[in-house]
Amino acid sequence: MSARYLLPYAPDAIGGLPDGIEAVVWDGNGPAPEAGALRAVEFFCLPYMRHAAALPLLPTLPALKLVQTLTAGMDDVLPHVPAGVAACNARGLHDASTAELAVALVLASLRGIPHFSRLQAEGRWSQEFHQSLADRRVLILGHGSIGQALAARLLPFECEVVPVARRPRPGEGVHGVDALPALLPTVDVVVVLTPLTAETRHLVDAGFLARMKDGALLVNVARGPVVDTDALLKELNAGRLRAALDVTDPEPLPAGHPLWHAPGTLITPHVGGPSSAFLPRAERLLRAQILRYENGEEPANRI
Amino acid sequence: MSARYLLPYAPDAIGGLPDGIEAVVWDGNGPAPEAGALRAVEFFCLPYMRHAAALPLLPTLPALKLVQTLTAGMDDVLPHVPAGVAACNARGLHDASTAELAVALVLASLRGIPHFSRLQAEGRWSQEFHQSLADRRVLILGHGSIGQALAARLLPFECEVVPVARRPRPGEGVHGVDALPALLPTVDVVVVLTPLTAETRHLVDAGFLARMKDGALLVNVARGPVVDTDALLKELNAGRLRAALDVTDPEPLPAGHPLWHAPGTLITPHVGGPSSAFLPRAERLLRAQILRYENGEEPANRI
Repeated sequence: MSARYLLPYAPDAIGGLPDGIEAVVWDGNGPAPEAGALRAVEFFCLPYMRHAAALPLLPTLPALKLVQTLTAGMDDVLPHVPAGVAACNARGLHDASTAELAVALVLASLRGIPHFSRLQAEGRWSQEFHQSLADRRVLILGHGSIGQALAARLLPFECEVVPVARRPRPGEGVHGVDALPALLPTVDVVVVLTPLTAETRHLVDAGFLARMKDGALLVNVARGPVVDTDALLKELNAGRLRAALDVTDPEPLPAGHPLWHAPGTLITPHVGGPSSAFLPRAERLLRAQILRYENGEEPANRI
Repeated sequence: MSARYLLPYAPDAIGGLPDGIEAVVWDGNGPAPEAGALRAVEFFCLPYMRHAAALPLLPTLPALKLVQTLTAGMDDVLPHVPAGVAACNARGLHDASTAELAVALVLASLRGIPHFSRLQAEGRWSQEFHQSLADRRVLILGHGSIGQALAARLLPFECEVVPVARRPRPGEGVHGVDALPALLPTVDVVVVLTPLTAETRHLVDAGFLARMKDGALLVNVARGPVVDTDALLKELNAGRLRAALDVTDPEPLPAGHPLWHAPGTLITPHVGGPSSAFLPRAERLLRAQILRYENGEEPANRI
């Protein structure tokens, strides 16, 4: 008999599961389990940050019913999910970690942390005025669960939050993307938090960037291709905009790419998700989804 | 006739003052005004970040009644204020800017921003797990107006805030300094926000630091001498604690000082106050204090 679950963690490492749930455990490091061990697998939770190794398995699992990611975005996974198989993302799992990194990037950029870090390396004390987040207008592009978590974290900083979603929700003060041309010239910071879809690819293009204020800051913690890298490079190299990018296009950013040394640019290597906040939240999400599956309920966060 | 005010900004640059308020304007750059022009000065607002140039004037002003700083701390000023002259600090003015810098230092240190900034300079993409502020316990040492502003900013990050003040305020969940020995081993981050007084000098000494958890982070945005630099250096060089310091002892930190290159240490050059948040809040504070003085009311924030 083979197990119905293929999981990146052993069931007894995920506290609170009922006894008797058997799983093939594979964390994405090393070779995938043999086909024989996987022939009864119905529920496959892809190992986090190891999608490239896991995707080739998807069409080989004859009993597969549900693919669960531990990422919020499934843009790389969806084309590989066989017809009739449920695809479920990890909505909510990365809210705390990703919204927190977005605030870290905004604050570090505005308050000059990378600059002072370079001065520190030279042993130089040079007191200077920098921009504060207080009194700034921050546009959040994408008002899903991470966007809402970001808004909650920004509000106590005495800044103004301008949420933008696909469609306006006037009752909640959320603007639609149609309002972007009018809103962009009024804000100091734009944080990109949209999923990558055909609609959002290069949503942040030359025209979008041209409407941003001189000196404004673009933060991307979503997916690299939402931003047109060439158009952004032109604005950065002209010194007209600043950027803080946790995701890039191409990604990983290859050695020698001009983004690495573009002026006014802070780059982190896609670390919005991977932090100490991940594991306890991943275990809670996976436990809840397994219990739903065991009880024959509709899975959560089906795309 | 000489003016009753000596101010760093012209009265008509501070919006909303009644007509007829005359002031000698001196921003601390260049030589101080002649004694003749100052003989009627009753209200002296020291120029921000220029205390060293301004303090020698204090004993020379025959009509002086009130000294106003634009800093929250007056430790450097109080010894120079003549008997019978009111000394007023800028309580509240730096809440937004300093609390914000404290969050920036916490997030940058935990999420590895200085580390990733160094990798960026080398053009290296290296995805790694770092600590999140989520799930951490953060002790705030000092529960004045900046400490409370910091707590408000931290709370949405799913972390736990442990406020400590001189005396416990059980109704508000505020611990007294007597509880520090028991609390320190339970927290992941300590943010120092106490004024510098005889009681708080070297409050963070070898014994204090020894009680902190392995790998814990010490953040100082108050005054350098609240921390015993030699004791902190021992812990940093042993790799047992991490630090983010906006203030140091000595300050400015001289070239070649071992703190510059201590492992796990981020240093910013006392920029908690100087940011774009300063000027609008300084003008509001000064306008309110001048109006109180004109109306014969008790000044605010008298020490």
